[in-house]
Amino acid sequence: MSQSLRVQNFTVSSDGFSAGEGQSLEQPFGHADPEKLLAWAFATDHPPINRSEPGSRGLDDYFTRDYARNIGAEIMGRNKFGPQRGPWLDHEWQGWWGDEPPFHTPVFVMTHYSRPSFTLSDTAFRFVGGDPAAVLDQAKEAAQGKDVRLGGGATIIRQFLDADLIDTLHVAVAPMKLGSGPRLWESPDVLLDRFHQDVVPSPSGVTHHLFWRK
Amino acid sequence: MSQSLRVQNFTVSSDGFSAGEGQSLEQPFGHADPEKLLAWAFATDHPPINRSEPGSRGLDDYFTRDYARNIGAEIMGRNKFGPQRGPWLDHEWQGWWGDEPPFHTPVFVMTHYSRPSFTLSDTAFRFVGGDPAAVLDQAKEAAQGKDVRLGGGATIIRQFLDADLIDTLHVAVAPMKLGSGPRLWESPDVLLDRFHQDVVPSPSGVTHHLFWRK
Repeated sequence: MSQSLRVQNFTVSSDGFSAGEGQSLEQPFGHADPEKLLAWAFATDHPPINRSEPGSRGLDDYFTRDYARNIGAEIMGRNKFGPQRGPWLDHEWQGWWGDEPPFHTPVFVMTHYSRPSFTLSDTAFRFVGGDPAAVLDQAKEAAQGKDVRLGGGATIIRQFLDADLIDTLHVAVAPMKLGSGPRLWESPDVLLDRFHQDVVPSPSGVTHHLFWRK
Repeated sequence: MSQSLRVQNFTVSSDGFSAGEGQSLEQPFGHADPEKLLAWAFATDHPPINRSEPGSRGLDDYFTRDYARNIGAEIMGRNKFGPQRGPWLDHEWQGWWGDEPPFHTPVFVMTHYSRPSFTLSDTAFRFVGGDPAAVLDQAKEAAQGKDVRLGGGATIIRQFLDADLIDTLHVAVAPMKLGSGPRLWESPDVLLDRFHQDVVPSPSGVTHHLFWRK
């Protein structure tokens, strides 16, 4: 079994933005409200952040519970990790996720600036430079035969698409507009030259776009 | 986490039959052609029987790859195990699946007639009598904290529905009629008093019906 690079549960607005502008410590998604953008995922039985009440177990839950299946590492951009830009001046910031990050695997944060690795619970964060192919090689080695999840944001996903390194993408398109911010696409059609596509409207209002290589 | 009883990837015709009439060693599905009835699943990257070529990774593959996720045991009716009826006269028959059954867990075959357990690869078949609740108790204990899959056929699923023991059902409705055979339902609407429902048409032509408890 070869190792795939998979985009999972990545959510964009109907105009293609995965977050708003103006990211800060208080607003990880800038002017976008993550509870609205990601409402479809939070309503399921396997939400991005654990809670105690049971959630829906319909179509959307198939996607949220597939999030970690056979994943051995994640690659993310530094803006998913935090709002800092430039050299890492404050090492006390350890991501948005508290003491129990939801990754449970090695996580490779792509950055031009070096920073020591650290581990929170069962998630080991490493800060790596280099081009997408080199980072993917490191992540695949760390994944020990399992697949690698590309966690986003939009800029990183576009870089890996440009390098033609992604095997499957699941993008949920939410029924709201954002107008500006980091953008994944102007239209999903940009992927159709290289990928098969299923378009699956969910009763929750989002539309799931599934892509896999031709 | 409580243990759920889940029906997964159970496929019926548009008129509600999960197999045809006249089951025999040569025709496990009677007059129904399993390659036609289950075509949606065989086309995916995680088909019911392993093959070497890659398959589709769209919507249908989410269902086939969820088949074994967090499953620790299966319960099946004796007609899923084989075409014999009455006392077990021939112990050489060890199911349809050859030396590598696709279950990889303990499997509880419900039968009124005793038969010794046996193990093929990592699947242990046990033959058990008793009512659905008692069989479920045994299967949950064997599943060691994981969920239990109810494998069918239609008769067994109806028995467990009557006993109100099923937590989630995924039923794929194939675009073909069978006219007769073991029948799951006249209409999915019979479940709506107790279950939420998502109805998800797939680009492959089947319609996925997802039920989870209210």
